[in-house]
Amino acid sequence: MNSIHPYFKFLLLFIPIFGTSSLVSQDDAHALYIRSIYDHALTESNCYQRLFHLSESIGGRLTGSENAQNAVDWTFQELKNLGVDSVWKQECMVPHWQRRKEATVFVNLPSGAKELQATSLGNSIGTEGMDWSGEIIEVLHLDSLEGLGESTLKDKIVFFNRPMDPTKIHTGHAYGGAVDQRSRGPAMAARFGAKAVLVRSMTTLLDDVPHTGVTVYDEDGRKIPGIAISTLDAEFLSKSLKANAKLTATINADCGMAEDKLSHNVVAEIRGSEYPDEIILVGGHLDSWDLAGGAHDDGAGCMHSIQVFETLLAIGYKPKRTLRCVMFMNEENGLAGGKKYAELSNQANEFHLAAIESDLGGFTPRGFGCSAREDVYKPYLAKFQAFEKFLTPYDLHLKAGGGGADIGPLKSQGGLLIGLRPDPQRYFDLHHTKNDNIDQVNKRELELGAAAMTSLVYLIDQMGLK
Amino acid sequence: MNSIHPYFKFLLLFIPIFGTSSLVSQDDAHALYIRSIYDHALTESNCYQRLFHLSESIGGRLTGSENAQNAVDWTFQELKNLGVDSVWKQECMVPHWQRRKEATVFVNLPSGAKELQATSLGNSIGTEGMDWSGEIIEVLHLDSLEGLGESTLKDKIVFFNRPMDPTKIHTGHAYGGAVDQRSRGPAMAARFGAKAVLVRSMTTLLDDVPHTGVTVYDEDGRKIPGIAISTLDAEFLSKSLKANAKLTATINADCGMAEDKLSHNVVAEIRGSEYPDEIILVGGHLDSWDLAGGAHDDGAGCMHSIQVFETLLAIGYKPKRTLRCVMFMNEENGLAGGKKYAELSNQANEFHLAAIESDLGGFTPRGFGCSAREDVYKPYLAKFQAFEKFLTPYDLHLKAGGGGADIGPLKSQGGLLIGLRPDPQRYFDLHHTKNDNIDQVNKRELELGAAAMTSLVYLIDQMGLK
Repeated sequence: MNSIHPYFKFLLLFIPIFGTSSLVSQDDAHALYIRSIYDHALTESNCYQRLFHLSESIGGRLTGSENAQNAVDWTFQELKNLGVDSVWKQECMVPHWQRRKEATVFVNLPSGAKELQATSLGNSIGTEGMDWSGEIIEVLHLDSLEGLGESTLKDKIVFFNRPMDPTKIHTGHAYGGAVDQRSRGPAMAARFGAKAVLVRSMTTLLDDVPHTGVTVYDEDGRKIPGIAISTLDAEFLSKSLKANAKLTATINADCGMAEDKLSHNVVAEIRGSEYPDEIILVGGHLDSWDLAGGAHDDGAGCMHSIQVFETLLAIGYKPKRTLRCVMFMNEENGLAGGKKYAELSNQANEFHLAAIESDLGGFTPRGFGCSAREDVYKPYLAKFQAFEKFLTPYDLHLKAGGGGADIGPLKSQGGLLIGLRPDPQRYFDLHHTKNDNIDQVNKRELELGAAAMTSLVYLIDQMGLK
Repeated sequence: MNSIHPYFKFLLLFIPIFGTSSLVSQDDAHALYIRSIYDHALTESNCYQRLFHLSESIGGRLTGSENAQNAVDWTFQELKNLGVDSVWKQECMVPHWQRRKEATVFVNLPSGAKELQATSLGNSIGTEGMDWSGEIIEVLHLDSLEGLGESTLKDKIVFFNRPMDPTKIHTGHAYGGAVDQRSRGPAMAARFGAKAVLVRSMTTLLDDVPHTGVTVYDEDGRKIPGIAISTLDAEFLSKSLKANAKLTATINADCGMAEDKLSHNVVAEIRGSEYPDEIILVGGHLDSWDLAGGAHDDGAGCMHSIQVFETLLAIGYKPKRTLRCVMFMNEENGLAGGKKYAELSNQANEFHLAAIESDLGGFTPRGFGCSAREDVYKPYLAKFQAFEKFLTPYDLHLKAGGGGADIGPLKSQGGLLIGLRPDPQRYFDLHHTKNDNIDQVNKRELELGAAAMTSLVYLIDQMGLK
């Protein structure tokens, strides 16, 4: 694992004279170094094997679960084994939602009851294991609820069925345009007396796989069950409602919140030699939903981040700035880890010059996007995009816009927030489903993502962002 | 299928005033038109359904086979059904290689015979169904044969085992750096009296799936069997040879050339209204290897090309230049179709201003590459890259270098040869194996490839290349 690639051995000859030699220009030296990062990542890296372990042996990592805590312990040890300067666990209290009995949904057709492919939304309450029946009313927009009013919606099962827009090139934009139905549908429908909510799954794919994901209730509002159904069943239900306006559904689920639990972020650090107070962070979130191994969401991002450290250490890189690798806890249904990390960082008067999150899967990287506090953004963006010339040989492009949920709370520190942009086309086929497993991850694609992140860390560390 | 997307209906209002109106600049009009192409391709296209039929119902399309001829007839009819100006079949004689009995390879270990995962190379002879045994000698480079000489190689089974270089970012470059072992290994080893050749499969993946592909004998040279073994078995065999230098293998295969057959390219045309003598071609190759449905290689390219025509017709586009859609026959083991197409085109004094081939799979498109006859290349390249601004919203980038095997013979006409560049990471995991089937194709990724090609055809048709 730590053997040195022949190409890098050649490179090592030049390192002592970087910056002073007329043999190799500074730009050429950077290009050569990035090439050595890729050579390592594509031949010696362990990110795929680690992801296999995380998603298959440990498995799904619902916040508050035993698996999630096993993942904390395992990644702590893996980072320690790399020989970083320090590794620690950061305590944080997290919500502990439990899917005790998966949701069932039957639509009561004139020809008999037909079961739909369903899964309870994360953080949702259930029916306490009892059958609840109600008339179904199809709604496309949250805004439409007000017009329908309590007179129409009381005791109804509201069925949100607005598809993700397939004409968006970036599936994330299509997701962003539809996910309000899942995240806020149950809370909003509850305001008008609805009994429960069914939501069309968040994917452009037409298939029979339901997608879970978080729903957020009003703080002191009524809570009603939220259940996702597959897109094919959503199409079927919509057609059935056109034929029979007064259809009812019978739902049953047992799920809900237990007591908050103590959990952890895992943080590893390599101390910077010249500017130790400027932190460059790489990270992903260690928790996942419970339906699968969470290989793409976000095992990939965590293993990318560990690989950044492994590669830099293996090729003997000594950073000028302090590098942090963070496994955030509870991105999916609370963001407790991301908030806690920023809170402690602010208390310690730290400054994150850059934070890079990978949370869009382990597919071929297309580049990075970035954002920052408005008053500091412009010069950062210019410097960031000036790095592109070093990355175009690897088919990477640097764009405005992007970041990550876990690093979002660091925005107030005034550093640059950066998101890895993997190819987005397959992500929402798998997102929050039983299919988000290692068999959907391509080893080379995963390694290329780690190499891209490592290269960007190198460039920021070498040249700063001012 | 031909219903008009609402977005496009809006667009239609502007079309009569394109170029003259002050409401919409020419560039904006082009951008809007490309948006309408994407809207159609992502909501109304049939390329995935067609690819399903081609690769699953028709199946593998080895040149000269009944399946290949069924594919000719079916694509002819599909193109006719689109309502193009004309469709015709172009006769060409093609080689008819037959895999009568798949190869078996046993390595005779001290502990007993162990079977390796093997497949005969395309165009290879077999052992006429008899067991042939010989001592195995591992070789990494064709160049090494001369040094070993006939004294060492006579009656040996030469085992070419140089891996594809995993550090190449573009897997095509890694393939290009290793494929001489498969394409020329048997011919070269035969010159030194070898009995047969085993070749490590052409993939960076370590798995148990052998990859076929063409081998080319010397015109009047000795022919010896060429058999690919899986990469895992190549690793195993190499290790076994280190432990036991004098290992033998026993091979058996029945395959070889039958009489040439009559086959066809399929050509469809939409006649240009202003410059009918400037042809813009889109195409792929209809033949495939016989081990799978040939979904990525090159069903995807053929269905991309038909989709270009379907989308342009569906949105009512009237080209200025003549558009051709070509299903080339016999790219895999002879290129008879590509050569015949260029021969007939030259006889008719035609000029292909641009030819765009899709033959690298149905994965997310990253852009296009181009090449041309040296004396005309520079101005073409500048004009080509000036189109990039219209395509960056779709994450497409335009580069120097590229084309396609089938369109290669058109180079002498002095037009621009263009290759679609899909994401290359997964292609050689599947290439020429039993796994190149529709389940490895993502519908959106395929549609995005078709939309990219359609957009480029539109841009070249509108603005030319001068």
